[in-house]
Amino acid sequence: MTRMQGRSRSYPDSVTQLIDQLSSLPGIGKRSAERLTFYLLKSSTEQALGLASAIEAVKREIRHCSICSNLTEAEPCSICSDPGRDASKVLLVEQPRDLMTLEETGMYSGVYHVLLGRLDPLDGIGPDSLSVRELLRRVEDPSHNCRGVKVEEVILGLNPDMDGDTTSLYLWEQLQKSDIKVTRLARGLPTGSQIEYANSAVLADAISQRQSL
Amino acid sequence: MTRMQGRSRSYPDSVTQLIDQLSSLPGIGKRSAERLTFYLLKSSTEQALGLASAIEAVKREIRHCSICSNLTEAEPCSICSDPGRDASKVLLVEQPRDLMTLEETGMYSGVYHVLLGRLDPLDGIGPDSLSVRELLRRVEDPSHNCRGVKVEEVILGLNPDMDGDTTSLYLWEQLQKSDIKVTRLARGLPTGSQIEYANSAVLADAISQRQSL
Repeated sequence: MTRMQGRSRSYPDSVTQLIDQLSSLPGIGKRSAERLTFYLLKSSTEQALGLASAIEAVKREIRHCSICSNLTEAEPCSICSDPGRDASKVLLVEQPRDLMTLEETGMYSGVYHVLLGRLDPLDGIGPDSLSVRELLRRVEDPSHNCRGVKVEEVILGLNPDMDGDTTSLYLWEQLQKSDIKVTRLARGLPTGSQIEYANSAVLADAISQRQSL
Repeated sequence: MTRMQGRSRSYPDSVTQLIDQLSSLPGIGKRSAERLTFYLLKSSTEQALGLASAIEAVKREIRHCSICSNLTEAEPCSICSDPGRDASKVLLVEQPRDLMTLEETGMYSGVYHVLLGRLDPLDGIGPDSLSVRELLRRVEDPSHNCRGVKVEEVILGLNPDMDGDTTSLYLWEQLQKSDIKVTRLARGLPTGSQIEYANSAVLADAISQRQSL
């Protein structure tokens, strides 16, 4: 059998570009980017352009609330401007999606502060990369808090892991300068779980922070 | 502890819309769509709008070649119009990415026909959903083949599995009406593999289609 001659070809330019753009997204490799590109090529123009314009709309419409840093189209956001919320309690979370998850419980009627991450010195994420300054400002000066209400309690609601705890400790130190109550979300056994499968860190929390009935 | 009152809130509209659009893509669930949306919100406007315009460009620029149905910006595509390719040999593949993979070997100098799928009656995919008509037309009438060259051989290069074989059999029957050679890609042991781990279907192919040295 003779080896036939040929040359290597590539996709048309616009296809290559879309593959490159998609594979630069987190969790999307070259293969998935190709699959998505072919899906978009196959799908209706309406659907594909719908995605494009949704991206454009998000970049055009969405900003961070100047008070709590949550994502919003309005300024301030609908939570900060809601007179039905108790603006003296500020629940501090890492990300907007944490806020959403807590809101879904319907158990909290205070306001929030979104830190937009956690301290990570090795990755170059210091207090200035997060909304720490905005937090301290609203705590110190009621005119920077929602509807001018004085902050009386900050509830630390960072993720219960090592980096979250480091960040909580840092913020706790910063907040000590002000005369407010600082609490954190309770730790213990997750309701619905089985003690048999709980790890020792969870059990240690459950024991040391046992509650009276 | 009293149960605090609150109400469930949602993301701003444009964020919800982008999450919905992204989660309608294959292999992207609600969680991934949220993660991607937050990534796009965080990333530079330039990067996010780059993705949006890449999607628009693909839908604007890319069509199927009228001869081989491959993706192309030009008409006919660069392979069909290349005088250095042997247009009397047509290698039939399922998808544009199969064509790309074969091209990367540099072992083939003929032209291609992209079927754009495989027969799947249960999913409602019959010959009319594929580029079968275009294939038969170029086989029967040289004026519909690349550069007016008569087709002498169709090489079936569908995926070597059950659906691929069903589709191959159907196409082989259709092509019998014309006076052309129909071949298919060789089956056997994949070079670099170990017989110990080959499955019985592969071994059966390797035995029944053994080659003389």
